[in-house]
Amino acid sequence: MSDSRPIALDAMGGDHAPHEIVAGAVHAVRERGLRVVLVGSPRVLYESLAELDATHEIPIVRAEEALAMDEGALASLRRPRSSIAIACHLLRRGDVSAVVSAGSTAGIVATGKLRLKTQQGVLRPAIAVALPTLPHPTLLLDAGANAEVKPEVLVQFGHLGAAYAELAYGIDAPRVGLLTIGSEAEKGSKVVRRAHELLEAAPGLHFVGNVEGYDLLTGKADVITTDGFTGNVALKTMEGAVRYAFDELRQTIGGSPLARLGAFMQRTRLRELSRRLDAEAHGGAVLLGLNGTVVIAHGSSKAKGISAACRLAADLATAGLVAGIGERVQRPHRSR
Amino acid sequence: MSDSRPIALDAMGGDHAPHEIVAGAVHAVRERGLRVVLVGSPRVLYESLAELDATHEIPIVRAEEALAMDEGALASLRRPRSSIAIACHLLRRGDVSAVVSAGSTAGIVATGKLRLKTQQGVLRPAIAVALPTLPHPTLLLDAGANAEVKPEVLVQFGHLGAAYAELAYGIDAPRVGLLTIGSEAEKGSKVVRRAHELLEAAPGLHFVGNVEGYDLLTGKADVITTDGFTGNVALKTMEGAVRYAFDELRQTIGGSPLARLGAFMQRTRLRELSRRLDAEAHGGAVLLGLNGTVVIAHGSSKAKGISAACRLAADLATAGLVAGIGERVQRPHRSR
Repeated sequence: MSDSRPIALDAMGGDHAPHEIVAGAVHAVRERGLRVVLVGSPRVLYESLAELDATHEIPIVRAEEALAMDEGALASLRRPRSSIAIACHLLRRGDVSAVVSAGSTAGIVATGKLRLKTQQGVLRPAIAVALPTLPHPTLLLDAGANAEVKPEVLVQFGHLGAAYAELAYGIDAPRVGLLTIGSEAEKGSKVVRRAHELLEAAPGLHFVGNVEGYDLLTGKADVITTDGFTGNVALKTMEGAVRYAFDELRQTIGGSPLARLGAFMQRTRLRELSRRLDAEAHGGAVLLGLNGTVVIAHGSSKAKGISAACRLAADLATAGLVAGIGERVQRPHRSR
Repeated sequence: MSDSRPIALDAMGGDHAPHEIVAGAVHAVRERGLRVVLVGSPRVLYESLAELDATHEIPIVRAEEALAMDEGALASLRRPRSSIAIACHLLRRGDVSAVVSAGSTAGIVATGKLRLKTQQGVLRPAIAVALPTLPHPTLLLDAGANAEVKPEVLVQFGHLGAAYAELAYGIDAPRVGLLTIGSEAEKGSKVVRRAHELLEAAPGLHFVGNVEGYDLLTGKADVITTDGFTGNVALKTMEGAVRYAFDELRQTIGGSPLARLGAFMQRTRLRELSRRLDAEAHGGAVLLGLNGTVVIAHGSSKAKGISAACRLAADLATAGLVAGIGERVQRPHRSR
């Protein structure tokens, strides 16, 4: 059963806004059969749509302001009529099923909290990112919404992530790990050590113990809970390291004509791999814990990344992510 | 001018102790012209030396106890006669120029602090790790000695790392970056935001601002300061991600016989690359801020890793790392 309401797409957020965002909307509508509403400056968006011969396919909702990519949390207060604020407003009113934006993460988080409010029972919203493990992604959260959290919040992030993993990947009783610096319970900061105790005692949560940085890409846990500072550093370190390793290896192997030819013949598989490792292809990060589904696409997203983000947003809305989280956090003591 | 005293090598610490440690000592002596003293059980070590026909080349200092790899900080109190404790004792007495151990990091840190004491003026010792950037490594510290630190300590880690970078790589006024989650000064946790202010005002320190996880391998800073929790997670994330990317790429490319043949012909360059990325080849992490140079080799080190660690320890001792750090932390207000 699919949610038939459209996705509200913030057309003014992102390094390549608005043109690539509009192109992404067109792709989502034409190739994925989704319904999308563009939020932004009508004049600008109409032009972009006209270029793609799509003025009749995608409606525009007016928002004359926008948050710049370098604007943070405070800007969301200063600009109540920004494109992301209007998109959240549409979601709040029930006109759309979810919001997608490639704008400034801090701006999206602040605007989302302000306009949509935190879900009942949720202590702190968190950003969940899907890491490219197989057979299904590992969810890392928080990837940057909260630089500092209490132990209870780390436990709840486990629940938020578990709800996501259940609904998005159909995992029964997702394995939840705590990111820290050693496998023993007594390793880590005070907050993390206390969170370990609470996680061990948490009903309805399949806690598999501490995980380390090594384990982000090994699939040892389905959900990895951490504060937004550590999670953000780890995520960016991972992205940087993968890019580095690829560049180095490509340079080394690229030196041999024979290897180059071989790699050429493996193009499809190489492309598939880089697609799997590409954050964009996953559709982006999800802001969990608000009264509505908000997908944060990568700031550098082009049309296909935006389209994938719309797909993700639609799927999560259809799966009932907000309700699923509500059930988990309001009845944490149910037994499984 | 070289320090002619030998290196004390903890022969009982490490996943492959004692045999690979002894083999590493023999390599260091024969191939690198270093002087090494093995610390551990004489009976066991004599046998290992005999197998390598090296009983006359390397002296043994008796230590009948050892810390197990899974033993932490407390064990160092329980075992005052452990091999690492005796090695530190030799260093304290001035019989050796430095200590090398592949044993449990927590055990080495605790024993080192207890036996060698923290250097005058140093707030907290830190573990510095050399990341494989070019043209010279980037130093990341703290990589795990302190799960929680005050802002002042993050500033001092900058000084410890800068002293290391100056002496080991000959860098003048090393660029110091602060690891956090955004380039703006106001990003990060309370501790990190305060550290940013202090670093900006710190005399004698070339602070280049915030760096993010992406920057660990880009050479944007010569020294990256962070707490031991974040540093350890980032380091292990990096190692895991590099391994992952290599495995994935190898699998993808390995599928084509032509590519395999090409890679085969590039063997030397590939080997060189994996050597550069291999933590072992760098000789390991260095525990900075004690009254004596302590090198922590990777727990999984084999002979060549141990030999490289002995080389690093000897070089740092000769360069006068302890004195260099003392100068920096006791005269932080000198102008450069």
